[in-house]
Amino acid sequence: MQTKICQMLGIDIPVLAFSHCRDVVAAVSKSGGYGVLGAVLMSPAELEAELTWIDEHVGGAPYGIDLMLPTSLADGGVSPDAVQLPADAVAYRDQLLREHDIDPDSLTAVAMATAESFSEHRADELIDVALAHGVTLIASALGPPPAAMVEKAHAAGAYVAALVGNKKHALRQLERGVDVIVAQGYEAGGHTGEIGTIVLTAEIVQTVNSINPDVPVLAAGGIMNGHQLAASVALGAAGAWCGSVWLTSREAETEEHLKRKMLEASSSDTVRSKYRTGKPSRQLRSAWHAGWEAPGAPASLEMPLMGYLSEPALQKASLLADGGHVGATELSTYWVGQGVGLMNQPKSVAQIMADFAEGYIEAVTALTESIDE
Amino acid sequence: MQTKICQMLGIDIPVLAFSHCRDVVAAVSKSGGYGVLGAVLMSPAELEAELTWIDEHVGGAPYGIDLMLPTSLADGGVSPDAVQLPADAVAYRDQLLREHDIDPDSLTAVAMATAESFSEHRADELIDVALAHGVTLIASALGPPPAAMVEKAHAAGAYVAALVGNKKHALRQLERGVDVIVAQGYEAGGHTGEIGTIVLTAEIVQTVNSINPDVPVLAAGGIMNGHQLAASVALGAAGAWCGSVWLTSREAETEEHLKRKMLEASSSDTVRSKYRTGKPSRQLRSAWHAGWEAPGAPASLEMPLMGYLSEPALQKASLLADGGHVGATELSTYWVGQGVGLMNQPKSVAQIMADFAEGYIEAVTALTESIDE
Repeated sequence: MQTKICQMLGIDIPVLAFSHCRDVVAAVSKSGGYGVLGAVLMSPAELEAELTWIDEHVGGAPYGIDLMLPTSLADGGVSPDAVQLPADAVAYRDQLLREHDIDPDSLTAVAMATAESFSEHRADELIDVALAHGVTLIASALGPPPAAMVEKAHAAGAYVAALVGNKKHALRQLERGVDVIVAQGYEAGGHTGEIGTIVLTAEIVQTVNSINPDVPVLAAGGIMNGHQLAASVALGAAGAWCGSVWLTSREAETEEHLKRKMLEASSSDTVRSKYRTGKPSRQLRSAWHAGWEAPGAPASLEMPLMGYLSEPALQKASLLADGGHVGATELSTYWVGQGVGLMNQPKSVAQIMADFAEGYIEAVTALTESIDE
Repeated sequence: MQTKICQMLGIDIPVLAFSHCRDVVAAVSKSGGYGVLGAVLMSPAELEAELTWIDEHVGGAPYGIDLMLPTSLADGGVSPDAVQLPADAVAYRDQLLREHDIDPDSLTAVAMATAESFSEHRADELIDVALAHGVTLIASALGPPPAAMVEKAHAAGAYVAALVGNKKHALRQLERGVDVIVAQGYEAGGHTGEIGTIVLTAEIVQTVNSINPDVPVLAAGGIMNGHQLAASVALGAAGAWCGSVWLTSREAETEEHLKRKMLEASSSDTVRSKYRTGKPSRQLRSAWHAGWEAPGAPASLEMPLMGYLSEPALQKASLLADGGHVGATELSTYWVGQGVGLMNQPKSVAQIMADFAEGYIEAVTALTESIDE
């Protein structure tokens, strides 16, 4: 296939794959797509090790990394140890765990990526590591990155991509000189906005084309197959940015019980909830959400406090669930988009990519036939 | 163009247009699409008059009607006069009106379409009127219609269509022998579900194809142009069902101040709120919603009570707003989908339909070029 993003990145299938798992990243790039490693939680040494592994396994194909590029120069940072969580929220969480036969004692504080905790200094070090490995794209899920970071990437021959959830954000990113805009719709897993993918993509394509038609737009949010990839291109996008679809792939490190839950879920089984990070993020609906949405539950805390409260509990639940613990399995959840309803069987990454290509051709054929007289 | 729905209904452009306005219905059908008149609030005599007018203006092209087909045999009905609205909610509404310089006295009760108020007897009379005029499609936004109604439509040579918001609803409608399934996504105006159009359409197409591949699926929710129509067909749909895009057409009876608001709005300017009918319905965001979402506001009432509270106030605001009343213009709102961000200039229905066809061809051309080697 040939679209603007294929030409820009030198790939055959216009699918960009966000994953925290190096195996997925390498397999996507080897299969003709473009893997993007989620690196936000890594130290520079960890990233160095991951990228060395990818270089050894990707067969020379291009790949990129995803960071939270901080928008300001201030080094922030609130440590989990330095904050006092509200007693009523802690008590409510602990009771919810006990109701699911989980001992709330000795929960371990968990490292989390938040805008506050991710400093420019750290982002800069990670970018240096990535550019030394020859990544060709650096993506950011936050607001417009500092100009110096964009310049550094460009000087090294790498592109900068940015995720946006509305038109205003797209305009800000274009001003900052970003090269690729990812229009991420309401359907997406993780932190996401209010506007559905079929509207947002069309609107962002119009906006970007009116300012700089050379900038490719990618559709994101709910896209799991080649028919939806063709729909994205019909909307004027150059391809798709996909995260959830890899979670149930054979290569993904997703816990087995979560893979099972995802394969069984329909599109109605996700929830966009504040009760994990403090901001609305889409997750598999579980007993965790039922507990926090029940009458009498405390309100969600702000980011990053909600994460300090939820992550240790949910990570303990996830570990127990893989051992067959019933209550923990009910509670356990992970970020995934509404497209989870279209993930119905475990596949290899290569198979998912082949299905993308095949579905795309099927869709184009059907469209072509619809206008043959 | 040729898709399953084009063949079934004998139309050239696979766009079904829901509208309360007979002018829009006739103009869409004359332009090669298929107009569907929203008839739920009409008496049999009123419907007779509307359909007679359409017959005189549609040039022999086919058209349909949309009703709420009741799912059970019970005649319901709660009259606005028979209910006591909670005093705190009434007082809050009246204060909100006063803050916008509107006198809350002498608000007039307003007829509303609700599942409770729409009896099977009345639906049956309307269907008789419509079938006598030779409508070829009867659509229903509610749950599965009674078998007798489906049989009556089929006996007269008309098809039955049903709107669904999730997979479970689609399965129920198929069991009842419905001929066309409309997958209506989160982006849509009016009462709508949680699942985005790009996911819901793909999931419903899979579901319907596995049971009865002869049943066409239409995509709905956010679809305003030919690129999105092509995206719908890429997803496996036979076309699109559109409501919002007609609201700013020259033929639509939408109040002028609402047309202006809609043309200026971006996709971020809608809200899916209970504070109009008592169930989540998507509307243009206005000072009405800000008022009811403010701290200390009463909770929304159940359907139909919330409508008895809101409709007289909002209809008074709408009347005043067209006269230039500032506070009323701030409050005034109407049901519209997120695609409102793509409605940027007033057009005739014929122009909207021509743009649908042109955008469709553009999208198919771009897709075809993307797979040419």
